[in-house]
Amino acid sequence: MPMALSTRRMATTAVINGERLWSALMAMAEIGRTPAGGVRRLALSDEDRRARDLLVEWLREAGCAVRVDDLGNIYGRRDGDDAGATAVVCGSHLDTVPTGGRFDGVLGVLAALEAVRAMRDADLRTHRPVEVVCWTNEEGVRFAPAMLASGVVCGRFTVDEAYAARDQDGRTFGEELRRIGYLGKPEHRMRSAAAYVELHVEQGPTLEEEGAQVGIVEGVEGISWGWADVTGRAAHAGPTPVGDRRDALVAASRIVLALRALCAELPGVRATVGRCEVVPNAINVIPGAVRLSTDLRARTADLLATASRRLEEVCAAVARDDRVEVRAREFWQSPPTPFHPAVLSAVADAARDLGHTTLRLWAGAGHDAKYVADRHPAGMIFVPSSGGLSHNEAEWTSKDDCVRGASVLLGAVLRLAAA
Amino acid sequence: MPMALSTRRMATTAVINGERLWSALMAMAEIGRTPAGGVRRLALSDEDRRARDLLVEWLREAGCAVRVDDLGNIYGRRDGDDAGATAVVCGSHLDTVPTGGRFDGVLGVLAALEAVRAMRDADLRTHRPVEVVCWTNEEGVRFAPAMLASGVVCGRFTVDEAYAARDQDGRTFGEELRRIGYLGKPEHRMRSAAAYVELHVEQGPTLEEEGAQVGIVEGVEGISWGWADVTGRAAHAGPTPVGDRRDALVAASRIVLALRALCAELPGVRATVGRCEVVPNAINVIPGAVRLSTDLRARTADLLATASRRLEEVCAAVARDDRVEVRAREFWQSPPTPFHPAVLSAVADAARDLGHTTLRLWAGAGHDAKYVADRHPAGMIFVPSSGGLSHNEAEWTSKDDCVRGASVLLGAVLRLAAA
Repeated sequence: MPMALSTRRMATTAVINGERLWSALMAMAEIGRTPAGGVRRLALSDEDRRARDLLVEWLREAGCAVRVDDLGNIYGRRDGDDAGATAVVCGSHLDTVPTGGRFDGVLGVLAALEAVRAMRDADLRTHRPVEVVCWTNEEGVRFAPAMLASGVVCGRFTVDEAYAARDQDGRTFGEELRRIGYLGKPEHRMRSAAAYVELHVEQGPTLEEEGAQVGIVEGVEGISWGWADVTGRAAHAGPTPVGDRRDALVAASRIVLALRALCAELPGVRATVGRCEVVPNAINVIPGAVRLSTDLRARTADLLATASRRLEEVCAAVARDDRVEVRAREFWQSPPTPFHPAVLSAVADAARDLGHTTLRLWAGAGHDAKYVADRHPAGMIFVPSSGGLSHNEAEWTSKDDCVRGASVLLGAVLRLAAA
Repeated sequence: MPMALSTRRMATTAVINGERLWSALMAMAEIGRTPAGGVRRLALSDEDRRARDLLVEWLREAGCAVRVDDLGNIYGRRDGDDAGATAVVCGSHLDTVPTGGRFDGVLGVLAALEAVRAMRDADLRTHRPVEVVCWTNEEGVRFAPAMLASGVVCGRFTVDEAYAARDQDGRTFGEELRRIGYLGKPEHRMRSAAAYVELHVEQGPTLEEEGAQVGIVEGVEGISWGWADVTGRAAHAGPTPVGDRRDALVAASRIVLALRALCAELPGVRATVGRCEVVPNAINVIPGAVRLSTDLRARTADLLATASRRLEEVCAAVARDDRVEVRAREFWQSPPTPFHPAVLSAVADAARDLGHTTLRLWAGAGHDAKYVADRHPAGMIFVPSSGGLSHNEAEWTSKDDCVRGASVLLGAVLRLAAA
């Protein structure tokens, strides 16, 4: 098997420079740094432009040909031996939430940069080209929805929809993209990829709790978002006998607890009520109406459908028992997205060869890799996120974990680029 | 027993004129009438002035001497045979909530007016003077707190506190009282009362459900208002395993349901959670903190204390089981106020003589009678409120019910004024 031999030789010759990776992470964390030590680098802001400028400079220094597409996505290409072969792409995003941390997104971009730097140091030639990508507006907090640019590139949204997205101040994605100088060309978009690999911090506590160094991400869970509207009868908290009450908050509380119980009943399902709006919300008025949000997540379409059906049953039972009306309706669904076996194998092989302990898990949150997986073989690598914290200025992943993740990314990319 | 004979003779000679009472109610309902057929007559507004002017005119026509005190409370006095005897006082309030109904408050004032009109028609002389009273700002929606003027007269608040109370536009009670021309004299306040009787619509469904015509109100329940602050840990609804969650809304839901269960466990207690504020209240974030309001009501101080203690136990149990912090604290308490047996007897005797079916019950909401009861023998009469609805433009009490209530009020006042 000459290919496997070749792969192994390459993986031992190109090595992640941990100090350089960490130094790049900390330098990037200065752009938009908050007093509390986090990062505020909203998509298409001046901070985003400065971060992009630095990335472009680094990519060029690493010998990459840089191009920018009409969504502002930045690609740094390192040619392979076969100029006509489709590239192996790796990357993530540089934008953050308003009080974000130093690792979410940026680790995947800078680990990909470090991978091509390591290849250059080792004077290593891959069969396929390798591309570093930085996706625009992954977070979706400035311009909704999230993963907007990867979504356009992968056919989820139109470019006009993206350009028309407005921030809170009324400025559009299109205007801001032009303003910061990152409005590139449609023909620069990623058209095809032999494989796409994204390294990211876990954003949950599972790796840390299980004592695993590297997460092999098998897919992104399906999500169903909905509203459960409970209508009871507002009445005076004083004179209204308990037996006569049609208390919408009592009924809503039963739904909250039934959804929690549903998670135990259906392993692999997670149900969350994050929002609760009470009407009239006055201390001495029995609540007449409550709106709850429902967030269901599961790994398979079947399990997600079962959870949605159980949610409806729960609402019907509460409506009957509490003499209220309950209207449950889904307003958005993202189907479960399993990642590609070939990409996961490359990740698993790379981690095994490096001697890292691994855990197979699913991503509960969205990532650009989810949309890429619609069109191309894709996969993800997770590294631990301290305490499961993310989207928080105190977000933390250790230098060792970052280096391990980047090393696995490099190993996986070399394997995928060899074929 | 000459006194009892005298009473009976009087009760048969003075009779409520149902048409006149109803006509007065409907005329008053025109002042501040809303398009939906309710009434908006906020305390010390121009509508309140017009209603007061009409009441004063009617009281004078009925032969009463009218005086106004420094809180704007209006008194219409009909002398008795014994000019030095303390008066029997009956009345209620003319102000409404912003979208109020045609009966809450005003029925008690106009039934008292009708009682003195009926006495005049019958040329009936009582032993004690009889006074009709209209209290200022019972609702407390324009100037907090509720029952502000009866509270000053009965020693709960100072007059300076009342004058300084501000509405949403920054205007004070004192300024508005002067503006509408109802700033009277301190020496006009009610100093003593042989008895105080207030007729009011029930505001709850009990009389209607029990098929009773008249409610003999034994007291006003004690109220304890507090906050229960639940602190969990906000986290991403996606990647956070269910077992790791410290979901403040799940914990808060258990408290809501435990308080509902408490009502069954402690008959006579009513517990209501009317407000619920969730932080951060985002669909894909596990709630990190929830503030619940707690409203406990009971007839005795012991029962109220037991309910408060059980609330604390519930919060402690939920904190332990759900690994959250729960801080429960009372911020306001109004002790239970039993009404005076002599007043209740007079009401019961009057209802019995008229052949009305009665029910003894407690008031779950505040009324001016509560503060009056701190200083003077007081009691209340309830008539049915359709569907228990009040503070609502669709509030309704039938003409028959209004007439029955006024007749019982007249009978009770005549009994009390005879002694």
